[in-house]
Amino acid sequence: MSPFTGSAVRTPSWQHLRVDLTDGVATVTLARPEKLNALTFGAYADLRDLLAELSRERSVRALVLAGEGRGFCSGGDVDEIIGATLGMDTAQLLDFNRMTGQVVRAIRECPFPVIAAVQGVAAGAGAVLALAADFRVADPTARFAFLFTRVGLSGGDMGAAYLLPRVVGLGHATRLLMLGDPVRAPEAERIGLISELTEEGQADETARQLAHRLATGPALAYAQTKALLTSELDMPLAASVELDASTQALLMTGEDYAEFHAAFTEKRPPKWSGR
Amino acid sequence: MSPFTGSAVRTPSWQHLRVDLTDGVATVTLARPEKLNALTFGAYADLRDLLAELSRERSVRALVLAGEGRGFCSGGDVDEIIGATLGMDTAQLLDFNRMTGQVVRAIRECPFPVIAAVQGVAAGAGAVLALAADFRVADPTARFAFLFTRVGLSGGDMGAAYLLPRVVGLGHATRLLMLGDPVRAPEAERIGLISELTEEGQADETARQLAHRLATGPALAYAQTKALLTSELDMPLAASVELDASTQALLMTGEDYAEFHAAFTEKRPPKWSGR
Amino acid sequence: MSPFTGSAVRTPSWQHLRVDLTDGVATVTLARPEKLNALTFGAYADLRDLLAELSRERSVRALVLAGEGRGFCSGGDVDEIIGATLGMDTAQLLDFNRMTGQVVRAIRECPFPVIAAVQGVAAGAGAVLALAADFRVADPTARFAFLFTRVGLSGGDMGAAYLLPRVVGLGHATRLLMLGDPVRAPEAERIGLISELTEEGQADETARQLAHRLATGPALAYAQTKALLTSELDMPLAASVELDASTQALLMTGEDYAEFHAAFTEKRPPKWSGR
Repeated sequence: MSPFTGSAVRTPSWQHLRVDLTDGVATVTLARPEKLNALTFGAYADLRDLLAELSRERSVRALVLAGEGRGFCSGGDVDEIIGATLGMDTAQLLDFNRMTGQVVRAIRECPFPVIAAVQGVAAGAGAVLALAADFRVADPTARFAFLFTRVGLSGGDMGAAYLLPRVVGLGHATRLLMLGDPVRAPEAERIGLISELTEEGQADETARQLAHRLATGPALAYAQTKALLTSELDMPLAASVELDASTQALLMTGEDYAEFHAAFTEKRPPKWSGR
Repeated sequence: MSPFTGSAVRTPSWQHLRVDLTDGVATVTLARPEKLNALTFGAYADLRDLLAELSRERSVRALVLAGEGRGFCSGGDVDEIIGATLGMDTAQLLDFNRMTGQVVRAIRECPFPVIAAVQGVAAGAGAVLALAADFRVADPTARFAFLFTRVGLSGGDMGAAYLLPRVVGLGHATRLLMLGDPVRAPEAERIGLISELTEEGQADETARQLAHRLATGPALAYAQTKALLTSELDMPLAASVELDASTQALLMTGEDYAEFHAAFTEKRPPKWSGR
Repeated sequence: MSPFTGSAVRTPSWQHLRVDLTDGVATVTLARPEKLNALTFGAYADLRDLLAELSRERSVRALVLAGEGRGFCSGGDVDEIIGATLGMDTAQLLDFNRMTGQVVRAIRECPFPVIAAVQGVAAGAGAVLALAADFRVADPTARFAFLFTRVGLSGGDMGAAYLLPRVVGLGHATRLLMLGDPVRAPEAERIGLISELTEEGQADETARQLAHRLATGPALAYAQTKALLTSELDMPLAASVELDASTQALLMTGEDYAEFHAAFTEKRPPKWSGR
């Protein structure tokens, strides 16, 4: 429990997501398999609020985002989201689109690595959720489709026009966001959209193992690595070098750095505390 | 016709380019095949002015940039450009180099997708024109050469030192711009410089088909996708997410989004208006 | 000798590096092969000071950074650096981490191309030195490991969290910096981390040939290409196009541009002066 806790109570129950927290690993599962885990307003809101709550807990050291069944996430539900937004006024439309963007920012800015475990479809907002994760562990059935233009909207949804060129380059990103065509696992791996390709059916288990590795490792070092990667995309070289120096000086006063040296000297594996 | 039209008249005739406008697709052809479509001062000026004029027309929904004959474009003409610039004063040299840069900015900033159809050589300024396009459709004879250092100039010409690292990464971009060596189609595809590799001799036809697909699709969605991709290369994450939210809220009030939902509900293909 | 020389004297002898300067090529060799060229405080300080001195010399036109023996550089020495930093106060920790960052900035900002010749291990700070170079010439034994988190530190060391995503994309960069796992030559080539893969044992010789090619070429054009690549990573499109125009106008008044045209007209190879 962080000392920086005020009056807010933890949400007693997540209605629109399945959430498990074991041994420092939070596993968040989109669990509407009969709809290929299509997102609803409630699911977006829960993702936003859950990530904010978990970001305040020192106990969470890695997070797996998974989808139940044969797909990861088919994106916003056509009936529950597209239909509903057609009746909204300007302020509501902004509120909705800001909420979805807040989920992406929360994934990029939370102080622990996020691993998307992808099998089958990752479409629309589902593709952007995976894109925003630090790791995309996918099996050969995975296919990504940024299909926003297919519904008459901009391919730049939830930060996709910012993130995708920085992951796969501007050429591929333009093609993917403009056309909305599906990208299957071999191409996704080739262009750098998949972090680790697994055997079929193994995305969840491989993601779980990676999360376990991260959760038992030097968590503060991982958190700062993520924070610097996210921040320095938006920073010039000179400032980045200064931020790196200052961060590294800080971590050199930490427990894990001393523990590494002690373990190395004593020829034993380090016991990481994440402090 | 856009309502935002003043006194300016459309250029009655383009002397240095071949221009065709059919069914929403503008096809701009560099047509000096005997010189591998080497660029002249007039061709640069026409490209700058043509793109400005077309950007004001609602009727243009996609643009193909092609080269007649066996090459796409061999770059600035050695006699007509290099020779002439040797006699210029400081202000003229700046004017010339700003004009070429304006062509690249116009390609990146015009409100429709630009498709370069590349066969054979795309060298010097020709390589940068292709680089600035949204799509590079190329056949196996394509070879790109950013050969500016070969003539004693900087590899950063017309925005190449900005664009190329964002398309292929800093490592490849440094090698290509510093050395000016030709990059053949297989490598260009591997590093992300080619959007779509076609059969030999099929670059023009494939580009035409892609332009047709884009011109008959949701043109406003494509235009905004392009605008966000271009803008967000220069924006931080938080601002990009806000721009995405605001753009998406706007497009959710548009005709094409409602049309998608109606078509989906009625189980028929959407009829896009681009509004 | 540059006319912009004051009272400072050249360092008479580099104690922690082997430095050779022949025919415009500086060769800097990390020469502690029995320690896989692990870096010491002295080696960092010498790299910082040497690059500053060489940057003031017009005679240096290319630099090769090599490692003696079977590895390129295994990073900071566990005893001499990690052990020593554990006893440092806050100001000293900052001074150390700023010094290492200054080496990276010097590599990116010096007015000549830097070529890392990599065989065997390039780990920790050694991987970042190679990353900061303009070219990474590597043989099949090369393996890169950004292993900072393995010692409890941030993967963003010496600008790595800035540079690596711009070279290999954010997805690969996250995986490499977060996990610190080794990347062997085939993967390094595939993701764009290697500029040129050589036959086994040929990294030094190929780097030497590339340096010779660069040193006998249009040195000012190369210097400006490098400066624009470095600067424009941090600049928006419009400003980059303006910087390109201004740089090109300047180089069009230079000797090498006129020499290219004369040589082309006379059908002979150009004689580059680098002015």
